[in-house]
Amino acid sequence: MAISVENFFLDSRSQATLQSRIQQMIAQGILSGRLRRGEKLPSSRKLAAHLGVSRITVTLAYTELVASDYLTARGRSGYYVSENAPEPLPAATLHTAQDRVDWTRAIGQKFTGGATPDKPKDWARYRYPFIYGQADASLFDHANWRLCALQALGQKDFAALTSDQYDQDDPQLVEFIARHTLPRRGVVAEPSQILVTMGAQNALWLAAQVLLTQRRRAAIEDPCYHALRDVLTQSRCHLTPVPVDADGLPPDLIPDGTDVIFTTPSHQSPSSATMPLARRHALLERARQMEALIVEDDYEFEMAFLRKPSPALKSLDEDGRVIYVGSFSKSLFPGLRLGYLVGSAPFIREARALRASVLRHPPGLMQRAAAYFLSLGHYDALIRRTSQAFAERRQVMEAAMAKHGLTIAGRGAHGGSSFWMQAPEGVDTEVLAARLRDRDVLVEPGRPFFAAEDPPRNFYRLAYSSIPAERIPEGVARIAAAIG
Amino acid sequence: MAISVENFFLDSRSQATLQSRIQQMIAQGILSGRLRRGEKLPSSRKLAAHLGVSRITVTLAYTELVASDYLTARGRSGYYVSENAPEPLPAATLHTAQDRVDWTRAIGQKFTGGATPDKPKDWARYRYPFIYGQADASLFDHANWRLCALQALGQKDFAALTSDQYDQDDPQLVEFIARHTLPRRGVVAEPSQILVTMGAQNALWLAAQVLLTQRRRAAIEDPCYHALRDVLTQSRCHLTPVPVDADGLPPDLIPDGTDVIFTTPSHQSPSSATMPLARRHALLERARQMEALIVEDDYEFEMAFLRKPSPALKSLDEDGRVIYVGSFSKSLFPGLRLGYLVGSAPFIREARALRASVLRHPPGLMQRAAAYFLSLGHYDALIRRTSQAFAERRQVMEAAMAKHGLTIAGRGAHGGSSFWMQAPEGVDTEVLAARLRDRDVLVEPGRPFFAAEDPPRNFYRLAYSSIPAERIPEGVARIAAAIG
Repeated sequence: MAISVENFFLDSRSQATLQSRIQQMIAQGILSGRLRRGEKLPSSRKLAAHLGVSRITVTLAYTELVASDYLTARGRSGYYVSENAPEPLPAATLHTAQDRVDWTRAIGQKFTGGATPDKPKDWARYRYPFIYGQADASLFDHANWRLCALQALGQKDFAALTSDQYDQDDPQLVEFIARHTLPRRGVVAEPSQILVTMGAQNALWLAAQVLLTQRRRAAIEDPCYHALRDVLTQSRCHLTPVPVDADGLPPDLIPDGTDVIFTTPSHQSPSSATMPLARRHALLERARQMEALIVEDDYEFEMAFLRKPSPALKSLDEDGRVIYVGSFSKSLFPGLRLGYLVGSAPFIREARALRASVLRHPPGLMQRAAAYFLSLGHYDALIRRTSQAFAERRQVMEAAMAKHGLTIAGRGAHGGSSFWMQAPEGVDTEVLAARLRDRDVLVEPGRPFFAAEDPPRNFYRLAYSSIPAERIPEGVARIAAAIG
Repeated sequence: MAISVENFFLDSRSQATLQSRIQQMIAQGILSGRLRRGEKLPSSRKLAAHLGVSRITVTLAYTELVASDYLTARGRSGYYVSENAPEPLPAATLHTAQDRVDWTRAIGQKFTGGATPDKPKDWARYRYPFIYGQADASLFDHANWRLCALQALGQKDFAALTSDQYDQDDPQLVEFIARHTLPRRGVVAEPSQILVTMGAQNALWLAAQVLLTQRRRAAIEDPCYHALRDVLTQSRCHLTPVPVDADGLPPDLIPDGTDVIFTTPSHQSPSSATMPLARRHALLERARQMEALIVEDDYEFEMAFLRKPSPALKSLDEDGRVIYVGSFSKSLFPGLRLGYLVGSAPFIREARALRASVLRHPPGLMQRAAAYFLSLGHYDALIRRTSQAFAERRQVMEAAMAKHGLTIAGRGAHGGSSFWMQAPEGVDTEVLAARLRDRDVLVEPGRPFFAAEDPPRNFYRLAYSSIPAERIPEGVARIAAAIG
């Protein structure tokens, strides 16, 4: 197939002859890497018609380019980019040279430089990936997901899913969340209290934007999910990190005057502590006293394979004070980018308006495919299968860690997918992680989870959500050896 | 299938007996609409085990609920929600009563109340929908889109698409945009200068966040796309609406000290004016003088069926001053939510970090499915087919409007999908639109596009992207009659 004529434009500013402008245009395309060796050029007739020049001008330009070995002519079949054409220039030469904008000045708000670390994008190539938050393709129900997506792609659903939904969600997904997902967490909500989001990240972000300003005060757990700290730092509110203990966030330590409390009661992130019932009531009472709101990130509640999960904090909320964040990205797969926000209707209304402004709505196709997967029971089956695998992996891991004398700093009472680990004093787990990467092992250093400028450096996280059970003993042995 | 036991939690705060707490729990489930008539309850054995109570307690509670006709017993098969069970209470009774949060105070930032109007969600039911920005299912290449999505859903792509991509995009889609889409607009960009977004809306939003602060000044066209004005109003920058003329945005009217200029040169929104080449150079020169940036929304460039589209403003940009916004949502379907942002690497880096904070990345599956659809040539074929249909519809529409003496205020020189219309002075097109809705006709009032508090009320937009050609004459006749 020839390169389409629509790729070619003459430089209207140039004073050069038509023929040399055509030559420049093509040579530039080759040098910039847009036109590649072996690709066919449009016929001289077509290009001439497109550019509004005579055919002979194009032919002369082509002939010149053949002479300089940018192009080759192959008899009747036309002109091709020559195999001897010059290598494309490095992009820097082409672009930054011509950039005359002072970007330091032009950028009004910076968003780079947060606490969230760069994670290895090639994690799946490692043999011992104790990496957190990725899907395990071997556990996922690929066949049924495909069938559900196919059904959502069917003619019947097409109109519903391809329209601009303005600020609305797929009613089938919202209905399922209201009737099946939330009741399992003891939460009652109607559709006007539910907003579908692009994963939990997006839900937390929306909540922060609606509730916080530069004058408001937020409290977060310390350590906590680094991406949440980034979101709150960007919001420019007054932010207080509150050190967690073995029962999670201690209500007494939340400073007076706090407007919004961000917490992970089911499963503290990253320490995995579960907040006991008495403390939950105390937390709600503390919030009531201060007229504060609570944003509850109920992540990973599905992975409760050791004992029944406690109901969500939201289920104890009599005041409409708790805003609840759930996600399908962890339990289905992260690339799905589907979560939800549950709260009182006035709050959801604002979050919906903001979401519409930022991105309109999560794609209808993804919402409907998930709704089918959930309502046909595949999701529950997946959770059961994943739970069984995780339970086994966790056992193997506990045995291996005991054998090698590794110290567990926190583990989920109900299950979960990771351990929060403590290396001996003096071990810098960022150095440890780098060393282990060379030994085919991925672990997650703990530093980015802490708020302090000079945080403890000897914590790390080991997840078992992406590593097969049989590789765990050797992986743990390598970690122990690297620490030792 | 019985309702899963996981839906049931006892109220731990209640002082009542276990049996009456179970009764309350079930009755409340029915009153709240969570448990519906005819649904089967868990067996007394299962529910007892789940709640940690004796089986006889559950059986006694069930028996009581049968007596009060909340449940019925069907012999050996168990207990069901009775067909005579009370109607679920209206949601308001259940929820707002218990909400003790002062939401007026608790909401830090309001996002509702923007200029963007509520649009009829049931537009597809109207016989004469001159509605803008929706897909026409009859033109879409549904079969090939489904095949491409299927391919993206295949085992081979699975790992790549289901992972958390952190802040990255599908390299196949980015490559296609760089090598095929942008060159058609005369734009050269490498992957580090491209960010995939959730549609053009998301691209505009990201650009506004990165470039604007409360101290910066932005200029927008007047009239302009109302959702853009909402985004900029939310950013709290100083905002100047600049009246457009028949050639689009006049550079001379942009006030000194402007930091960012938002413009639609190919196709002014909503007036459809195309900015002539000389004015494009003047606009770039004006921006250069002020060291301002330009955000170019190149919407609908694909719909150029009357004459060749002019290259994008970005193609004339020698300074890296223009940030380019493109979208597949208009040309494929809006529910896809895929667009892109092209700009200098320092800008794209910040936009990427912000996107990661807000939503991580657009779902991998949608990106890959679009990449296949584009690279297999289905997209080009779709554009050709759509262009042909739109060309015909436009012709029919022009003839009908001429016949009925309707006044066209603006029409795209290259094509497009709508006319910007002017009714006689004194006609309020919001009243007109309401009247026409009763006559099965949808038109879009022009008021929300204008920035002024007291804008002209006699403009409206008529699109032909969702109405079949054969219905156009009658639809136009009805509009003429209603203006009458």
